[in-house]
Amino acid sequence: MIMDQNDGICIQNVYWEKREGVSAQKLTKKDMHNHGGEIYGHSYKLDYSVNVNPMGTPSSVVEAAAKGAALSAQYPDVACSELRRDLAAFLSVREEQIVFGNGAADVIFSAILARKPKKVLVPAPTFAEYEQAAKVVDAQMVYYYLKEEQEFGIDEGILDALTPDVDMAFLCNPNNPTGQLVTRESLIRILDHCMKNHIFLVVDECFNEFLEEPKRYTLIDQLDRYPNLLILKAFTKTYAMAGLRLGYGLCSNREFMDRMAECNQPWAVSIPAQYAGVAALKETEFVARSMKLLHEERKFLKSELKKLGFKVFDSQANYIFFKAAPDLKAECGKRGILIRDCSNYIGLAPGYFRVSVKLHAENLELLRTLEEIVNG
Amino acid sequence: MIMDQNDGICIQNVYWEKREGVSAQKLTKKDMHNHGGEIYGHSYKLDYSVNVNPMGTPSSVVEAAAKGAALSAQYPDVACSELRRDLAAFLSVREEQIVFGNGAADVIFSAILARKPKKVLVPAPTFAEYEQAAKVVDAQMVYYYLKEEQEFGIDEGILDALTPDVDMAFLCNPNNPTGQLVTRESLIRILDHCMKNHIFLVVDECFNEFLEEPKRYTLIDQLDRYPNLLILKAFTKTYAMAGLRLGYGLCSNREFMDRMAECNQPWAVSIPAQYAGVAALKETEFVARSMKLLHEERKFLKSELKKLGFKVFDSQANYIFFKAAPDLKAECGKRGILIRDCSNYIGLAPGYFRVSVKLHAENLELLRTLEEIVNG
Repeated sequence: MIMDQNDGICIQNVYWEKREGVSAQKLTKKDMHNHGGEIYGHSYKLDYSVNVNPMGTPSSVVEAAAKGAALSAQYPDVACSELRRDLAAFLSVREEQIVFGNGAADVIFSAILARKPKKVLVPAPTFAEYEQAAKVVDAQMVYYYLKEEQEFGIDEGILDALTPDVDMAFLCNPNNPTGQLVTRESLIRILDHCMKNHIFLVVDECFNEFLEEPKRYTLIDQLDRYPNLLILKAFTKTYAMAGLRLGYGLCSNREFMDRMAECNQPWAVSIPAQYAGVAALKETEFVARSMKLLHEERKFLKSELKKLGFKVFDSQANYIFFKAAPDLKAECGKRGILIRDCSNYIGLAPGYFRVSVKLHAENLELLRTLEEIVNG
Repeated sequence: MIMDQNDGICIQNVYWEKREGVSAQKLTKKDMHNHGGEIYGHSYKLDYSVNVNPMGTPSSVVEAAAKGAALSAQYPDVACSELRRDLAAFLSVREEQIVFGNGAADVIFSAILARKPKKVLVPAPTFAEYEQAAKVVDAQMVYYYLKEEQEFGIDEGILDALTPDVDMAFLCNPNNPTGQLVTRESLIRILDHCMKNHIFLVVDECFNEFLEEPKRYTLIDQLDRYPNLLILKAFTKTYAMAGLRLGYGLCSNREFMDRMAECNQPWAVSIPAQYAGVAALKETEFVARSMKLLHEERKFLKSELKKLGFKVFDSQANYIFFKAAPDLKAECGKRGILIRDCSNYIGLAPGYFRVSVKLHAENLELLRTLEEIVNG
């Protein structure tokens, strides 16, 4: 009994709010009794806190995962052979340039363990899992604070922060939660600077597919030039496969890739995830339709949010970052809509929020709700 | 289209031989071109190298995983709430004593990262993943070599090896690959000794369910007495869920559990795995039937292997460890049967093998093949 999720709107049982950078199992133990009422077992009409393709998981992907489940008496193919072959062809990279993980988060942890950096630079705000992983090896964090006056964009001022004592840096492009882009030209200058200073650079391109011009921003064609570059990617967002866990890294540095593999179990990618990934790569038409819809709805949502009086940043991803009254999340929650309060991102004060871009009918409901809150 | 695996005998596409302790993705890069012909893309009639329940995955588990796949546009429940509640009740432990992972191997890595041991003791031979994980933190390994004259059993001589400079030790009970047991009394003396010497002890009980008397050997009832104890368990073997990746640790030490959670991503356990786990715990009748069959076939297989002239050790697990001519694996491979050559375990020379215990018809085929090899 396979359900097609493509037309599903109502999301129930958002058991735990996803709190990036806060360990879930840690929450279980430390916060369960304090916050249990707030974050556990709630039902929401709409979950605007999660950034996956609003068209849902392609049915072919769900069916492939189910087929994989039926074969799960075996251990997973540790090499992810079929998926590796197909993905290499899809991306025009060499098979050995891919390292798969149990979601992109798994690849982040392996990269940190492989490098064991003493000092790690991240922009602030950004996705908190880089720091979570860096803490495993007790790395000292250096923050490059992004400025609201510059729309939280990453400029080349970051070069001064990338001093030779920094071992590793993370850039998310487009950045999470702001949706801001670093240009290719800036990235290459940053890469050159990192190479000169022996800094390993991880560029997280998990949201690259949602750009208007993905190829203009990806660094995949630079892999062979930069042995200090790891590109992070995931199936999670594009194919709405968050629950299946499938991410990967791309890198031309064989020694580093070997070390990453040593820092993870061999069986990190489940059979359902491998099968789902193979099916997903065939869904080019689905992705094209999704992106067309996404681009339209992103434009619509940004424009409407501005009309409601919010300060809206010009996100290029599948989510929108904006400024509003600090209680907006609570007000939305009362009305059955979950949005992402970004106040726990380092570098942000209360009053910043992120909403995903969803289907038109859903977006209209979000906007109606926000209007009700704003206009009382 | 869910396939019922319970009656499936023919195993095709054993893509890569599972090589415990050797990173799969490392193999991809280092050995793909060398060993590709040997370990890649082969078909075997029978895979005797993998130690999962010979009755296969219960169909309810496959169906639950498929249902989970259909819900995978969402992120996994980071707390594994439903599974946690059911497993705690099933084991009579408290919910906060459970840490879930992407298979037991994931829990091993988290435990190592949480403890960051300088010196780790393992018996030799034993499951190689403990050492693989210990190497991530550059731990020095200390081996307690098990002796063939003592059937490779772990005796209390290990107490002398557990010196105060050892930070962490691993015991697999029954041990892999030998199937030998440590008595509960010895384990408690080892635990007391470890406690006195500030040694954190991980007891791997992944094969406990296959014993004639599982409750006589498990340390679950000792969790509250020993804050230096982590028990490892998995759904992999008992429910033949290797491809779905679901394992867990049990521990009463909250600080250690928090640290373990910090050393892993929050979304380590996929939705299909969580759903499968919940379904598996209801399969008590299936497990009872499996164990009855397993105990009969284990006895039969040990007795028949002895008749063929092999030195057979008295395994209490769902696999049998024996001594034979060093080329036995190659000979079996030619005849379409994959067995585990144990010569790459530390502490073993060539000529030791491990075969799983399967269904009677399969075991007869294995025995016919071995007889053909032995008697020309």
